[in-house]
Amino acid sequence: MALSKKLLTVAMASSLAVSGLAFHQASAEKGGNKKKGEIQNVIFLIGDGMGNSYTTGYRTLKDDPNTPEMEDTKFDPYLVGMQSTHSWDPEESVTDSAAAATSMSAGIKTYNGAIAVDLEKKDVKTVLEQAKENGQSTGLVATSQINHATPAAFGSHDESRNNYNEIADDYYDDLINGEHKVDVLLGGGTSYFVRDDRDITKEFEKDGYSYVTTRDEMLNDKNEQILGLFAPKGMDKKIDRPAEQPSLKEMTNAALERLDKNKKGFFLMVEGSQIDWAGHDNDVVAAMSDMEDFEEAFQAAIDFAKKDKNTLVIATADHSTGGMALGRDGVYKWDPSAIKAAKKTPDFIAKEIAEGAPVEETLKKYIDLELTPEEVQSVQEAKDTSGDVLEIDNAIEKIFDLRTGTGWTTDGHTGEDVTVYAYGPGMEKFAGKIDNTDTAKEIFAILEKARPSHKKE
Amino acid sequence: MALSKKLLTVAMASSLAVSGLAFHQASAEKGGNKKKGEIQNVIFLIGDGMGNSYTTGYRTLKDDPNTPEMEDTKFDPYLVGMQSTHSWDPEESVTDSAAAATSMSAGIKTYNGAIAVDLEKKDVKTVLEQAKENGQSTGLVATSQINHATPAAFGSHDESRNNYNEIADDYYDDLINGEHKVDVLLGGGTSYFVRDDRDITKEFEKDGYSYVTTRDEMLNDKNEQILGLFAPKGMDKKIDRPAEQPSLKEMTNAALERLDKNKKGFFLMVEGSQIDWAGHDNDVVAAMSDMEDFEEAFQAAIDFAKKDKNTLVIATADHSTGGMALGRDGVYKWDPSAIKAAKKTPDFIAKEIAEGAPVEETLKKYIDLELTPEEVQSVQEAKDTSGDVLEIDNAIEKIFDLRTGTGWTTDGHTGEDVTVYAYGPGMEKFAGKIDNTDTAKEIFAILEKARPSHKKE
Repeated sequence: MALSKKLLTVAMASSLAVSGLAFHQASAEKGGNKKKGEIQNVIFLIGDGMGNSYTTGYRTLKDDPNTPEMEDTKFDPYLVGMQSTHSWDPEESVTDSAAAATSMSAGIKTYNGAIAVDLEKKDVKTVLEQAKENGQSTGLVATSQINHATPAAFGSHDESRNNYNEIADDYYDDLINGEHKVDVLLGGGTSYFVRDDRDITKEFEKDGYSYVTTRDEMLNDKNEQILGLFAPKGMDKKIDRPAEQPSLKEMTNAALERLDKNKKGFFLMVEGSQIDWAGHDNDVVAAMSDMEDFEEAFQAAIDFAKKDKNTLVIATADHSTGGMALGRDGVYKWDPSAIKAAKKTPDFIAKEIAEGAPVEETLKKYIDLELTPEEVQSVQEAKDTSGDVLEIDNAIEKIFDLRTGTGWTTDGHTGEDVTVYAYGPGMEKFAGKIDNTDTAKEIFAILEKARPSHKKE
Repeated sequence: MALSKKLLTVAMASSLAVSGLAFHQASAEKGGNKKKGEIQNVIFLIGDGMGNSYTTGYRTLKDDPNTPEMEDTKFDPYLVGMQSTHSWDPEESVTDSAAAATSMSAGIKTYNGAIAVDLEKKDVKTVLEQAKENGQSTGLVATSQINHATPAAFGSHDESRNNYNEIADDYYDDLINGEHKVDVLLGGGTSYFVRDDRDITKEFEKDGYSYVTTRDEMLNDKNEQILGLFAPKGMDKKIDRPAEQPSLKEMTNAALERLDKNKKGFFLMVEGSQIDWAGHDNDVVAAMSDMEDFEEAFQAAIDFAKKDKNTLVIATADHSTGGMALGRDGVYKWDPSAIKAAKKTPDFIAKEIAEGAPVEETLKKYIDLELTPEEVQSVQEAKDTSGDVLEIDNAIEKIFDLRTGTGWTTDGHTGEDVTVYAYGPGMEKFAGKIDNTDTAKEIFAILEKARPSHKKE
């Protein structure tokens, strides 16, 4: 309902503009260089692996049990449509994050593993690069290592997502108009930037970037260009996160504060990276933890856009992960109460148990539920028979799967369409059923209008 | 893209109307009693169980391999949003078809099994009843028995979906302004209408309805009121369908021809009933068969609406079924080619084998694939060890699951949001994220305008 009104408002504005009647009104509302409704900034948020079961499950989790209706999530009022995600290769038609991100950054279909390269492994220009060519500021924010597939496909080029060091090198070495491509880089990944052969953090610092490694350092920094690496590889899940790591929302706000200083505008990509990692692990607790992290970042972007009025926000997923379903084994119930009782992820709890912590006490410490003797025993057995953290993790996850009614079909990705949310000027371009390549094409079309050369022509 | 343009067109028309400038244009385009853009007819199509994996899988199945892009389905251009489907009861939060249909017919949340009754088991008025009160014509079309949960919740009231005879009785006994509630009833269900205690078909005939039981009889009939029952209970799946049974499209067109004769307009509900039944059976072949049946009916509704210009078409699902996922066991591929090779459903094939047909020949006869010796052997074993049609069916389904990469988590329903498609005047009311109760509320609001009493007031 909210969307309908918004689309109508946007459309009515266009209609009036077309009819020429609104000219005086529009002129009167100009502020500085910005015209009302002109798109100056694009914030593109990607919930990696955030399929339809994740967004619906998250709404169910956050439902206020004291009201009869189920409350909308922060995403819901901005739903405009869905995006297809298949990759180029019929033999690998379910996309990986690299191919999907390349489709969304460069507007082409490519092979799984490709980082902003086409089928011939040639570089393809990304929307982030176009923004930088336009003289706009750019940012990449993620909870994975910042050189992981999704952010990499916006700010680098490589024939393989696995070339982590080369991708990190790209962020420093690839220049556009003599400048580094990305002004704000926030996420995990110190192990790829601080290496025996090279310390990219020092190189960035030499060129005027701040380099920070903790939440406090990030919050206290005021430099417009910043590299923030808060973990050796991926950061921790929201509910496991130590105080030294910022949240995705805090990184998003840190990016927005800096990028907004450029009068020509900016492009910012924000990834909720580990919704997907939780899906690979078939871990519904971790999935919902990082859905919340992503929702808070999305809300921060919306808040910025509502104040700014010249910012387009798009949020979507690259694919779904795990074949997660809100229902299993014939039971007509999906009950998130066990998820609310978890204070840490099964991964976190399993690690402590594998390192010697007693099973029952550790489960009690981190899960606010009366576990059955059978549930405790299932974890004890995993510890006794293998002792492997993965087996213990699986046993704990199974408790949550059975209590919630969560089903899974794979530890990989699945091929269903994913939801698309949008707000701000231009939002109607992302409405209806689109393909992930359309997303990039529409952003390119928006950035095209901001090109200096375009304006000269 | 297509949607966006359509919404814009609708919205621009509204905008012009609001500004008062389009008055002369609108007046000039009046035809008879109809004003351009006024909603006179509502066609509401429900793909039972048609979750997101079904619509995406169906697109993949229908993709033309000779073109680089994946073609849109007939549904895709009309995607306007998604609908939440949870039922009232937290202990059974995943809805059944009865509760979901009651939400969509009457605008309330209720318990699973409820047929247009509330939590106190009191009757609640449905949109079909409102249309009949308005003097409009009404129709119900389904491939299940026509007194199955979904159509039942539009045209009858019962505390339990299982009271099939009572629901069939309701269709005849419940009168509105002295008339039967539903003018066109097409589907399966003779065993509930022709009974030892009562023959409802005769009663309808006495009151001027035609009663038909074959495709030819239906196509040759010209009566405005008709009861067509083409199977004892549910009809056959599209690819199993004998020549005597009409398709869902043919039933839809038969309904539209009749209902369109009422100058006050009509309400028609069309259900692709057995997408869900295929999902319960975890049968991807049958699911795609009946997706095609439903798509053809949807296209018929769109074709009608495009000519008519005063018809609103809405299509959605009541829930998803089976936890079907386009991906399983870590493989990044969903390959529908095996589905294309099936000439009959696994159910159909299993029945012949259970009745004595030789395994390998029968599989070869109905599946245009080089099956491996292991695949043939798996079906042979099911026959030899149990001989039960269900076990043979499961063995055949497993061949398709593994070849396509289809995963399942349950033989019941799941709780994810479902897609919503709309076309025609009023389509924007169904855009964005809505709840299934909103769907009924919006249809009521549209019908409210057509109420005779409203016009007098």
